[in-house]
Amino acid sequence: MNKVIIDCDPGIDDAMALLLAARCEDLQIIGITTVFGNADIQVTTSNAIFLSRLFGISAPIHRGAAAPMSVSSDAPPTFVHGENGLGDVDDHGFLEIPAGLTAQDFITDAVVSNPNEVSIIALGRLTNLAQALEKNPEIATLTKEIVIMGGVFGFSGARGNVTPCSEANIYGDPHAADLVCKAGWEKTFVGLDVTMQCRYGDNRLSRLAASSRPECKYLARIAEFYRDFYRSTGYLNGFPLHDPTAVAYFIDPKLFRTQSGPVRVATSGIARGETILGDNTGRSYAEQHWADIPPSAVCKAVNSDAVVDLIEHLIVGH
Amino acid sequence: MNKVIIDCDPGIDDAMALLLAARCEDLQIIGITTVFGNADIQVTTSNAIFLSRLFGISAPIHRGAAAPMSVSSDAPPTFVHGENGLGDVDDHGFLEIPAGLTAQDFITDAVVSNPNEVSIIALGRLTNLAQALEKNPEIATLTKEIVIMGGVFGFSGARGNVTPCSEANIYGDPHAADLVCKAGWEKTFVGLDVTMQCRYGDNRLSRLAASSRPECKYLARIAEFYRDFYRSTGYLNGFPLHDPTAVAYFIDPKLFRTQSGPVRVATSGIARGETILGDNTGRSYAEQHWADIPPSAVCKAVNSDAVVDLIEHLIVGH
Repeated sequence: MNKVIIDCDPGIDDAMALLLAARCEDLQIIGITTVFGNADIQVTTSNAIFLSRLFGISAPIHRGAAAPMSVSSDAPPTFVHGENGLGDVDDHGFLEIPAGLTAQDFITDAVVSNPNEVSIIALGRLTNLAQALEKNPEIATLTKEIVIMGGVFGFSGARGNVTPCSEANIYGDPHAADLVCKAGWEKTFVGLDVTMQCRYGDNRLSRLAASSRPECKYLARIAEFYRDFYRSTGYLNGFPLHDPTAVAYFIDPKLFRTQSGPVRVATSGIARGETILGDNTGRSYAEQHWADIPPSAVCKAVNSDAVVDLIEHLIVGH
Repeated sequence: MNKVIIDCDPGIDDAMALLLAARCEDLQIIGITTVFGNADIQVTTSNAIFLSRLFGISAPIHRGAAAPMSVSSDAPPTFVHGENGLGDVDDHGFLEIPAGLTAQDFITDAVVSNPNEVSIIALGRLTNLAQALEKNPEIATLTKEIVIMGGVFGFSGARGNVTPCSEANIYGDPHAADLVCKAGWEKTFVGLDVTMQCRYGDNRLSRLAASSRPECKYLARIAEFYRDFYRSTGYLNGFPLHDPTAVAYFIDPKLFRTQSGPVRVATSGIARGETILGDNTGRSYAEQHWADIPPSAVCKAVNSDAVVDLIEHLIVGH
């Protein structure tokens, strides 16, 4: 049984990813940590509580960072996830945020007390991970694995979603992402190169809505908002499953092809948030920014039909 | 007859490019301007004079920028072009640098007095062009066309040569390159995406050395230094024809496939010198750095055999 912390900012695709993780029998969610991003931290934390109850997830929830480490905060993308972060469906109010550890302290404690047993699936800005790492650098080697939904590396012409070269989770806290890149944990980037190919089409959405399960019906309702946003930007054949694809990578990495190499993140200027893969051919460059950076795995290709089938199968059931 | 200014920093591949341009009957070199880069400005200017005499080019030579606009100067890449910029073959001393217009003033005068008739082939840092443009912004629309050997855009996995994401001519003066990108001239980037594919192999080099023409024999001698550098970095099947490929684009653009879009250059941080192509699909981004930037054409693919054949045919003759 794989012990997993899900670090997230629900968020419509985060909601789908949480249900997917909860339905996977090989995966034990030992905690959910929240971060600002798709909405502000009060909203994402309240949403995590709401979704956990709806999905029957008993793991504790720990509130994390409210703002990026160095850049100034951007307004939440309400045009993607709605004012309430969940497609403006229903109004469940602000649920009480539990007292207890911060996200970064929970992550550190869980990793240190279960050495090499805890994996982290990071679905939002990497602020919590970077802050935990700054306080306790040893967590990098004590964590079993991290899977990051974030970045874009230009494979098959993939482009960013905040700028032509950067993806929202990385752009939103580029310093945190660069710190995470420079640490020696086992890590994999599941970026737009593959998540944009894993689309949930209208037929699948109809089946989700037709499910007898209330959590599926709910996901279908909030997903319509998300679908409509993507449709308005020209994605007519289904909306991309960013966060669920990262969970799918954790469940079945064989559905992906990866490339390994040192990754750095541009933190300022027009390239802000760009994830840049150095090469691992041993070639030396005049500039050494990628030298001595531990490798990351980067998803470069995906069997998208199999991934979306896996996601639908686990979420909707047979 | 196409009036052309060649802005260059000879440089071994610049030397080949100059002879190629001189041999092309459709192309009239109306001036050569020099810039620091492959060697310092005194060396590149002296080399331009030496090469012009050897190749029988009668156009005037005008000395240009000695340093980048905003970043600090890097040491010249003597490991690529030799201490004398021409493979350390012979020692022709410093030839007298003619008094007269600076490169930027010559460019401006030539363009303004021949509106829409003068093209510029830029084979080095873009400092001269950017400085001319700053003083006289109208030259952008009065220039017929500029062809730039520079940049790397990641097509087919292409990587940089100073860092994984940046090419030397752009890295060497990123502010100048960004100014050139933002101006409204007709411009084409012939970057590493295509120039790395256009290789001069040993058979061709032998034919060059066996020519009865002294200028060919000379090019073959200096090219050995360049070939040996590339061989030492793992390029066993010939050295890349960076600058000649840009001239070849000017001569026969049909041998290339291009993509059009706004290009910006990252000027600082780990992405310094990266040429970033925005998209031209009308998609709007949260960040607007590429909005309202006039398009550039960017070479994305090349018929490399045809390009190298063209270069050899013109340089060596039948």
